Amino acid sequence: MIKIIVDAMGGDNAPASNVEGAVTALNADSDLYIILAGRQEDIQAELKKYKYDSSRMEIMDCRDSIGMNDIPTEAIKRKEASLVKAYWALKKEDDIAALVTAGSTGATIAGGQIILGRIKGVKRAALCPAIPNSRGGYTLLCDCGANAECKPEMLCQFGVLASAYAEAGFGIKNPRVGLLNNGTEEHKGDPLRQTTYQLMKKMDVINFVGNVEGRDIMMGDIDIAVADGFSGNVALKSMEGCGKLVLGIMKKEFSASLRTKLGYLVIKPAIKKMRAQLDFDGMGGALLLGLKKVVVKSHGSSKPRTIAASIANAAQIYRNNLVGRVEELLAGVDWQSLVPKDE
Amino acid sequence: MIKIIVDAMGGDNAPASNVEGAVTALNADSDLYIILAGRQEDIQAELKKYKYDSSRMEIMDCRDSIGMNDIPTEAIKRKEASLVKAYWALKKEDDIAALVTAGSTGATIAGGQIILGRIKGVKRAALCPAIPNSRGGYTLLCDCGANAECKPEMLCQFGVLASAYAEAGFGIKNPRVGLLNNGTEEHKGDPLRQTTYQLMKKMDVINFVGNVEGRDIMMGDIDIAVADGFSGNVALKSMEGCGKLVLGIMKKEFSASLRTKLGYLVIKPAIKKMRAQLDFDGMGGALLLGLKKVVVKSHGSSKPRTIAASIANAAQIYRNNLVGRVEELLAGVDWQSLVPKDE
Repeated sequence: MIKIIVDAMGGDNAPASNVEGAVTALNADSDLYIILAGRQEDIQAELKKYKYDSSRMEIMDCRDSIGMNDIPTEAIKRKEASLVKAYWALKKEDDIAALVTAGSTGATIAGGQIILGRIKGVKRAALCPAIPNSRGGYTLLCDCGANAECKPEMLCQFGVLASAYAEAGFGIKNPRVGLLNNGTEEHKGDPLRQTTYQLMKKMDVINFVGNVEGRDIMMGDIDIAVADGFSGNVALKSMEGCGKLVLGIMKKEFSASLRTKLGYLVIKPAIKKMRAQLDFDGMGGALLLGLKKVVVKSHGSSKPRTIAASIANAAQIYRNNLVGRVEELLAGVDWQSLVPKDE
Repeated sequence: MIKIIVDAMGGDNAPASNVEGAVTALNADSDLYIILAGRQEDIQAELKKYKYDSSRMEIMDCRDSIGMNDIPTEAIKRKEASLVKAYWALKKEDDIAALVTAGSTGATIAGGQIILGRIKGVKRAALCPAIPNSRGGYTLLCDCGANAECKPEMLCQFGVLASAYAEAGFGIKNPRVGLLNNGTEEHKGDPLRQTTYQLMKKMDVINFVGNVEGRDIMMGDIDIAVADGFSGNVALKSMEGCGKLVLGIMKKEFSASLRTKLGYLVIKPAIKKMRAQLDFDGMGGALLLGLKKVVVKSHGSSKPRTIAASIANAAQIYRNNLVGRVEELLAGVDWQSLVPKDE
């Protein structure tokens, strides 16, 4: 039995979406046990709408919740907030495997680093979403927002963290790691990229394939794109924005007249493929990598299916021992010989 | 009569594509005069295929050309290279208004800064493409590759340069300038973004509307997104990559069977709108802003219509006095009081 704690109050559609998503995930996996953290009466009101195995679902009552505009490092001190209480339970209870939240990204990162704690040797936790690629799989983008400023050693570690995720989450052996840069040639980029390139080349624990560009993320010729949190965030949101525009145009144009509605029916399979290609929520949310336990940050606007996917993904990578794999890989790097002392 | 010099040898499809594009542009605008820089015999062989007013077209024979893998600062010294000769002519001949090239980006930037020179007061030239947005217009992204490392003052200037382009190229009065960041709140981003935000707030010559995210570029609620060349490049290529994937899927799926081909005919207008939305070459190429004359860098893979669009765009912004407008706007900023001395 895998026990997962879900922040029922985080996100734009909480608690309705979160509770429905949790029920969906629970019903799909008989080996799952879910704790819903949030206002008991609100959660109970939502739970009443569904059929589920109540012996595998419990509520952890929390009287407070964190909003999107709260200051993360302050909010994370509010002991009755659902995310905070969930993090403390995750830290203290050995049998809780993972946390899923659609709440404030900043508070999720702060709670992860301050309450739960990082795996020994990890410099910084990193946010890592799975981007749909043209091979029908996913490309991991790490970091995409937790660390606006990075040093070469951090980028190297992001490559390690994401490699462990690619293995545990997608069964990819020896995942291909690219460094997100402004060109593919070895000398390209700013000093951060130039130094990181030289370090990654020397690392045996990752399968470094060189520099990649923004357009390579969705192509799928790599499994992982390593970025600082700033440019990773820009890349993610640029792709999402482009995808949303296209889907928006399709929706509007195809429902414009009887003629276009009929046309839509004929080409539905093609449209379905396009939708799948642009489904950035397919895997639910981004992993917060480098922490002592599995933490999944679902989109703030998560729908029930997004929450359910995040929970299923959390269970999957727990089963495949993500944290253990990170520790193994990290142990294979001699950081002191890799990174010059003055770094 | 506007005289424009075109590097006939730059780009993947040169000289065929460049010459055809030049002829198209010439035939569309009777006020245009074009100089084609490149191997005379190759250009003449291409020109023979078309009808055009030969009194408005001349060839500047150049025996050398710059490849995509040549080192820019070295290549720009090769005096017989078409791009180099074109830059020298642009610098020396008062009546040449603009240069259009699809050649090496690095060499174009190097030639612009070293041969042609910057407008007085401009710290760095910046590459500024026009991204199609959902309002049916374009959002300017500046810088997107000329400067991987930037200081706050440079980002402020990019806002000024792009504002002049938005006016001269698109007739936008008081264009809205956003700072590309990893979130919209004022405190977001790294120190570079935080400092730039505070400086831009104080600048009267630009209409600063605050931080924007990657997804806002294609939305069109802003006219200009200011970025360092690194993250701007990542944003551009991420959007392009996403767009190309979608168009690739459409092309493949819609030609898969008779059924889908018929379906395609019915919904053709909708598809056309999607194509327009994803046409990153609509304006031809990116402007290299901040130089003493108009320079347009067309895509390396430019087709004839891309070259023609680049030439038309160059003529348009020359007519609307881009360089003069940059000088006017720059004169309106008191940099010494704006930027602290230790910057």
